[in-house]
Amino acid sequence: MAFTIVEGANFDRCEGDDLGEKFDELSRKLREIRNLQKAASVLTWDQETKMPAGGSRARAEQLSTLSHLTHTMFTADAIDELLSSAREEIQDLPYESDDVSLLRVAQRDFDRSKKVPADFVAELTRHVSLSHHIWVQARLEDDYPTFAPFLAKTLELSRRRAEYLGYQEKPYDALLDLFEPGFRSSQVAQIFDKLKGELIPLVQAIGERADRVSDEPVHRSFDEAKQEKFGVIVAAAIGYDFSRGRLDRAVHPFETSFSRDDVRITTRFERDFLSPSLFGTMHESGHAMYEQGIGEGLEGTLLGRGASSALHESQSRLWENVVGRSRRFWQHFYPQLQETFPEALHDVDVDAFYRAINKVDPSLIRVEADEVTYSLHVMLRFEMEMGLLDGTISVEEAPDVWKEKHQLYLGVAPPNDRLGILQDIHWSSGLLGYFPTYALGTMLSLQLYNCALQAHPEIPDEVERGQFDTLRTWLTSNVYRHGRKFEPLELIERVTGRPIETEPYVAYLKEKFGDMYGLTSPST
Amino acid sequence: MAFTIVEGANFDRCEGDDLGEKFDELSRKLREIRNLQKAASVLTWDQETKMPAGGSRARAEQLSTLSHLTHTMFTADAIDELLSSAREEIQDLPYESDDVSLLRVAQRDFDRSKKVPADFVAELTRHVSLSHHIWVQARLEDDYPTFAPFLAKTLELSRRRAEYLGYQEKPYDALLDLFEPGFRSSQVAQIFDKLKGELIPLVQAIGERADRVSDEPVHRSFDEAKQEKFGVIVAAAIGYDFSRGRLDRAVHPFETSFSRDDVRITTRFERDFLSPSLFGTMHESGHAMYEQGIGEGLEGTLLGRGASSALHESQSRLWENVVGRSRRFWQHFYPQLQETFPEALHDVDVDAFYRAINKVDPSLIRVEADEVTYSLHVMLRFEMEMGLLDGTISVEEAPDVWKEKHQLYLGVAPPNDRLGILQDIHWSSGLLGYFPTYALGTMLSLQLYNCALQAHPEIPDEVERGQFDTLRTWLTSNVYRHGRKFEPLELIERVTGRPIETEPYVAYLKEKFGDMYGLTSPST
Repeated sequence: MAFTIVEGANFDRCEGDDLGEKFDELSRKLREIRNLQKAASVLTWDQETKMPAGGSRARAEQLSTLSHLTHTMFTADAIDELLSSAREEIQDLPYESDDVSLLRVAQRDFDRSKKVPADFVAELTRHVSLSHHIWVQARLEDDYPTFAPFLAKTLELSRRRAEYLGYQEKPYDALLDLFEPGFRSSQVAQIFDKLKGELIPLVQAIGERADRVSDEPVHRSFDEAKQEKFGVIVAAAIGYDFSRGRLDRAVHPFETSFSRDDVRITTRFERDFLSPSLFGTMHESGHAMYEQGIGEGLEGTLLGRGASSALHESQSRLWENVVGRSRRFWQHFYPQLQETFPEALHDVDVDAFYRAINKVDPSLIRVEADEVTYSLHVMLRFEMEMGLLDGTISVEEAPDVWKEKHQLYLGVAPPNDRLGILQDIHWSSGLLGYFPTYALGTMLSLQLYNCALQAHPEIPDEVERGQFDTLRTWLTSNVYRHGRKFEPLELIERVTGRPIETEPYVAYLKEKFGDMYGLTSPST
Repeated sequence: MAFTIVEGANFDRCEGDDLGEKFDELSRKLREIRNLQKAASVLTWDQETKMPAGGSRARAEQLSTLSHLTHTMFTADAIDELLSSAREEIQDLPYESDDVSLLRVAQRDFDRSKKVPADFVAELTRHVSLSHHIWVQARLEDDYPTFAPFLAKTLELSRRRAEYLGYQEKPYDALLDLFEPGFRSSQVAQIFDKLKGELIPLVQAIGERADRVSDEPVHRSFDEAKQEKFGVIVAAAIGYDFSRGRLDRAVHPFETSFSRDDVRITTRFERDFLSPSLFGTMHESGHAMYEQGIGEGLEGTLLGRGASSALHESQSRLWENVVGRSRRFWQHFYPQLQETFPEALHDVDVDAFYRAINKVDPSLIRVEADEVTYSLHVMLRFEMEMGLLDGTISVEEAPDVWKEKHQLYLGVAPPNDRLGILQDIHWSSGLLGYFPTYALGTMLSLQLYNCALQAHPEIPDEVERGQFDTLRTWLTSNVYRHGRKFEPLELIERVTGRPIETEPYVAYLKEKFGDMYGLTSPST
């Protein structure tokens, strides 16, 4: 036997149960493919955190081989046949069972992968690995022209990818579906329009009272090593398990997982700005806790990761914002933060700090944006992507279009491309169609938090005591443990009883920032 | 085309030359296999430097899948057929050409791999990954009994491996041949006996004058961050290219390469002992410079790594000892070291420092051993391995046998297993048959250095000026660039015109330490 540790793949049937020969063979093959995908994830993590500059060419080749191979293995006729025979073997098991869910998701993935030729996958992977490397340099040197041809190639490959995958309305839908199965761009545009209608007046009203909140306290001098240490303390406190994870530095913060027991995050530090590392770490910890909380029985299977990008983002933003930027959270942690940075914070009380980390400030960098303007950054990118993909925005003029749109939505324009179109990692990594999930996830973070609150009204009191078990346990049992068993819209409906909605997010913003900026009672 | 960057595989034919369809197809397939092997190397590096404890189970699975797959791909009938057809296509090219060499080595590797079943390879890989993890803990806690069953399994697997591979005299030969093709254990035993005859009287003579040299200066207090910084300066100065490499911490120092442009080393630090990190870094830099110096045309092929373990070791020990522990080297670097550690070294002159780093002291740890006693550590391990493998030493009694032999050869016995049988990484990593190459490499380091010196008598003067280009260039053009083109004995003969010999090593030791301990002129 080549793989003796494949048992345990299916925990909802009794040990020793011989479910079916074909199902077991399929599980074994899928597990092998999964191992190769995870090997690729390790190589990518290394590329972005540790790899010396010289390593990029060979790394692109290694990743290309891995993706070509996994694609070929996954789309083999043998898998097709096993999927059919295995289905017969487990037809009596319920829809929610691990086995039936695995088969359902495997079939969906198979059908999708089958549409894309393996050579194309290898080409895309190799391109992305090189393109990423170029982007890192281009961003550093504010050199868009060097990056432009790589972006053009990414767009060309994305268009081809969309054609391979197929779509009903627009090519963009095919890409969006990779990250958010079940969503279409027309639906996203509709949601975003509705959200815009709420956000723009809110940003305006706040803008008129901008001087009520100062973020000067978070722009003092903060030793980077101490930032890291405090970030680790907070991440561990909310429940990120460092014995099954680690924190490193990277240009762009991200979370990646090689198994539920090895889930890593990265962050970046600015000496004169506390928020990026602090909330970046909490953000990535949210992603990581999702992955660490996936059911043990799903480990090593196709189901062993988060349900979608928006659901993942709902968790990162829940922990970063709904918890991490709440007054109650800092009621507990602020004394410790003040002790860590006595020089910088000795004259700042918890209320001033709470206001500082929440200042609404139409700014240039998405990942540093406040909760109110954040979604406007996302909408800008969504529109850029739609335009770049259908050719109504050219690669050459893209930096200027970015600047114009930024001026239009946020009242400021980036002075250069480093702070503009070069700021995000996504396009350099081939991730077109990903951005909308950030705003969708933000909306979801409130829907899910409200449900948790309904079940456990004691959560805010616990947060104020630095306790997060009730919230995390609820999220684990309702969301995390299921992994990819259910499609995003299905999971949201199962947990909240509702479709995805803008209202909870808007109500949250109005209450929190209305209170902070005195919008509800003009006399304060 | 799946892999557009495979061109450049063969630099000794003109660009555009269409050598042969089958040869190109073979090259492409071998390159793909190579990429998977390198992916496994990244996973192993990560496992030993960065991976959180939780990650070990999944990592063992991932590595097992990779090794099973590469083995299956490499031993496929298609490779066998391609090897035959490709041979016909390139039969007119010379023996030394990259293409003919690639085919020769590929055929040898194929024949060997074909003998071992893929399932066995996967089992061994998975076992080794777990066993390594257990060893790290066992060593930390001085807990041999926990490690013992894993060692027993390693031995059992090694015996099976030897049977699969086949051998003429002893099972050990099959394992030795994995690292040092062309060598047999009887030949090693003969060389070691000869060496013993020289070393034991030398160690005795030095022992009678032990008080002539004090190593107290290197046992003062040295800040670890400064040790690391100085180590990097020295490594870069001798020629380790950090833009194509990096230095990390690990329990056991090692070098690993993912391409000639991404060659990494690790080291470890002791606050109260300068030598391990300093000479450990130079040692691993020697390995790394070998890999970085391999001909560009061999990149990504089976030939793109060092010729054998002994040849690799000849380079690490040449740079660590013949260069790094020489008086001339420190004539240049000592002022800088003194500046780095003013408190520890202000009252130590360069001569006292030179003597301190060279003190002959029969001690417990192989990697920290002086040049004279080093090979005795190796001989002990060789004998242990022979005994463990043929069953004349049992796993249970092994720690005691280790202690007895240590007492016999070096006049001291380790007080515990952490400083005894648990000290080396090798057995936990399945590397049985590897140890002899350390002593063989040490002998070779002198043979090769003497040749370089004959060609360039100015080398010692250059070393004294902190210049290493002449030496490194000679080594690159005579050894490094060839990669695995030639078998070890063949390469040694080509470069030195001689077989492997004990004499240059013994002469070097007698001169250097005779001088230092006043063995030649008793009046000093």
